[in-house]
Amino acid sequence: MEIKQVCILGAGTLGSRIAFQAALSGYWVKVYDIKEESFTISQKMISKIAKGLIASELYTQLAIDEAFTRLSYTLNDEEAVAEADIISESVTEDLALKQQVWTRMGQIAPEKTIFTTNTSYLLPSSLASFTGRPSRFCAFHFHDVFYSKIVDIMPHPGTDAKVIKILQDFGQKLKQVPVVLKKENHGYIFNAMLLSFLGAAGKLLVNEVATIEDIDKSWMVNFHVPMGPFAILDSIGLDTAWHVTHQLPDANSKAFAALLKTYVDAGKLGEKSGEGFYRY
Amino acid sequence: MEIKQVCILGAGTLGSRIAFQAALSGYWVKVYDIKEESFTISQKMISKIAKGLIASELYTQLAIDEAFTRLSYTLNDEEAVAEADIISESVTEDLALKQQVWTRMGQIAPEKTIFTTNTSYLLPSSLASFTGRPSRFCAFHFHDVFYSKIVDIMPHPGTDAKVIKILQDFGQKLKQVPVVLKKENHGYIFNAMLLSFLGAAGKLLVNEVATIEDIDKSWMVNFHVPMGPFAILDSIGLDTAWHVTHQLPDANSKAFAALLKTYVDAGKLGEKSGEGFYRY
Ligand SMILES: NC(=O)c1ccc[n+]([C@@H]2O[C@H](COP(=O)([O-])OP(=O)(O)OC[C@H]3O[C@@H](n4cnc5c(N)ncnc54)[C@H](O)[C@@H]3O)[C@@H](O)[C@H]2O)c1
Ligand SMILES: NC(=O)c1ccc[n+]([C@@H]2O[C@H](COP(=O)([O-])OP(=O)(O)OC[C@H]3O[C@@H](n4cnc5c(N)ncnc54)[C@H](O)[C@@H]3O)[C@@H](O)[C@H]2O)c1
Repeated sequence: MEIKQVCILGAGTLGSRIAFQAALSGYWVKVYDIKEESFTISQKMISKIAKGLIASELYTQLAIDEAFTRLSYTLNDEEAVAEADIISESVTEDLALKQQVWTRMGQIAPEKTIFTTNTSYLLPSSLASFTGRPSRFCAFHFHDVFYSKIVDIMPHPGTDAKVIKILQDFGQKLKQVPVVLKKENHGYIFNAMLLSFLGAAGKLLVNEVATIEDIDKSWMVNFHVPMGPFAILDSIGLDTAWHVTHQLPDANSKAFAALLKTYVDAGKLGEKSGEGFYRY
Repeated sequence: MEIKQVCILGAGTLGSRIAFQAALSGYWVKVYDIKEESFTISQKMISKIAKGLIASELYTQLAIDEAFTRLSYTLNDEEAVAEADIISESVTEDLALKQQVWTRMGQIAPEKTIFTTNTSYLLPSSLASFTGRPSRFCAFHFHDVFYSKIVDIMPHPGTDAKVIKILQDFGQKLKQVPVVLKKENHGYIFNAMLLSFLGAAGKLLVNEVATIEDIDKSWMVNFHVPMGPFAILDSIGLDTAWHVTHQLPDANSKAFAALLKTYVDAGKLGEKSGEGFYRY
C-alpha cells in the first residue's frame, strides 16, 4: 500500500514536528487536537522550525510554502481520519487517555488505516486490543524529528510484519533513520542507553566524586560532543528526569532523584525555566 | 615549582604518547623502559602520530623536529630520573609491578620529584605508601593524549593540595583538559559513565531487543557521533571489554561477558584483529 494521507492526533510538541516533516516530505497532513489553542502554538512552533530549515539551507522558502498548503488543522476527528492511510498519535502521555483515543479511532477510521503511537514510555501491547485492529497497530516513535532523526519501530507480538515493512519505508521518507525492535522494550533502544549513562553521571555527583562541570567535561572532551550529562538533563527538563529517576529501585537512583527534587522544588527545571544545573 | 624535566616510566602505548606531547609542549623528556625493543616500537608509533599532527596542521615539521631533540630513551633508571621534576609512570598495569617500580623510585629519585601514575584501574592509595613520599604522589590519568584530551587528577587521601594545583597547570600545558576527582573512584569519571552506557548496549543485545547495527545507529544518529557502542567496544578491544565485564556481579553483565567470550575465543578482538562486532 502507498501512503498519501497522514493523520496526526495531538498538535503538541511532537505531533507538530511530525506533521510538518510529513508535509515537507510531500504527504497530505491533517492534525487533530481537542484544544483550539494548541493550533496557534503549533503554528508558531512550526514557523520557527521553518526559519531554521531555511537558514541552514535544508529547504527553500518555496518548499516550505508548499508544505504549508498540504498541512491543515481540525477539531473534528472524523474529518481528520476520513481519508487517512496512517495515523500517528502524539496525544498526552497517559495510558487511559491513549486507550480511549484508540478505541474511538478503531470505530471511526477507515479499514485501510495503519495505526501508530509515538508513546515514550508505554508499550504498544497495552493499547493494541483497544484499537480493534491490533495487527495494524505498532509503536512508531520519533525523537525530535529535525535534529535527532531516529524513528523506533516497536511492534507488539500481534503486529503484522507487512506493517513493519511499510513503517520502515515511511520512516525513511520522513528523513528519519528507522530502527526495528525485535521485542517490546521500555524506553526503546536509545533511552535505555541514555538512562544508564545519565544515571552513572548522577551516581558520580551524589557520591561527590567530581563537580558537575568536571563530569560534563569528561564526557564532552573525550567524545567531542557539545553537551555532557548534566547539560543533557537540563535540556530534557529536570522535572521529567525526576519523574523517570524516582521510580527506579536502586539506592543510587533514589539518591539522584532526591537531588533532582531539590532543583525541581526550587523551580529550576533546566533550560525551559532558565536555570537547572546551569544558568541559561 | 616549575616543571622543566619530565621522566616517563614505560615506553608503551601511553608512555610514548605522553612523552611525545610533553616534548611538543617544550619539556625535556627522558623515557625509561626495561626492554630495548620497546624503544623501536615507541619511535615508530611517535613518527606515525607526528605525521598525523603535521597533516592536520596542528604542528609544523620544525616544531616536531625540535620536540624530537628534547626526547630521549634510556635503559638506566637512575639516569632517567636524575633531573626529573616529575615522573609519569605508564608501566604495565599490574599492582605488584607498580609497587616495585615506586619503591625503587622512592629510593633513587631526587627529593623534589613529583610522582604520578597513569594507572587505568588501580587506586593511588594502593601505591602511595611504596613511594616513600605519599604527599607528592597522585594519579594523573590520560586517555589517549591526542584525540581524547582529558587528564584525570585523582589524589589519594594523603596527596598534598599543592601537587594537585601543579598537575592542573601541567595538564593544561600538555594541551589536556584537567578534571579533578574529589575522592578515589575506580574508573575515574569517564570510564564510569562509559561502562554504564556500554553495559546498557550489551543488555539490549543479549536480551535480543535489537541488532548490533540498530543499537549503534540509535546512538550515532541521535548524538551525531561517528561510533555507536559496539564500534566503540571494537576499538577498545573485545578482550579488554571481556576482562572488565566478566568481573561485574549482575546477570546482564555476566550474559554480555559470555557473549564477548565467544568473540574472543574465535580470535575476534575488534579493530586490532581485523574483526569484532564489525569487520575492518
Ligand atoms: N516531547 C518529547 O520530547 C517526546 C519525544 C518522543 C515522544 N513523545 C511522546 O509524544 C506524545 C506527545 O508528547 P508531546 O511532548 O508532544 O506532548 P504535548 O503536551 O506537547 O502535546 C500533547 C497534545 O495532545 C493534545 N491532546 C490531549 N488529549 C487529546 C485527545 N484526546 N485527542 C487529541 N489531542 C489530544 C493536547 O491538547 C496537546 O496539544 C507523548 O506520548 C509523548 O510521550 C514526546
Ligand atoms: N592503553 C590505554 O588505552 C591506556 C589509557 C590510559 C591509561 N593506561 C595505563 O597506562 C599504563 C601503560 O599502559 P599501556 O597501554 O601503555 O601498556 P603497554 O603494554 O603498551 O606498555 C607498558 C610498557 O611498560 C614497560 N615496562 C614493564 N615493566 C617495566 C618496568 N619495571 N619499568 C619500566 N618499564 C616497564 C613494558 O616494557 C612496556 O613497554 C597502564 O597502567 C595502563 O592501565 C592505558
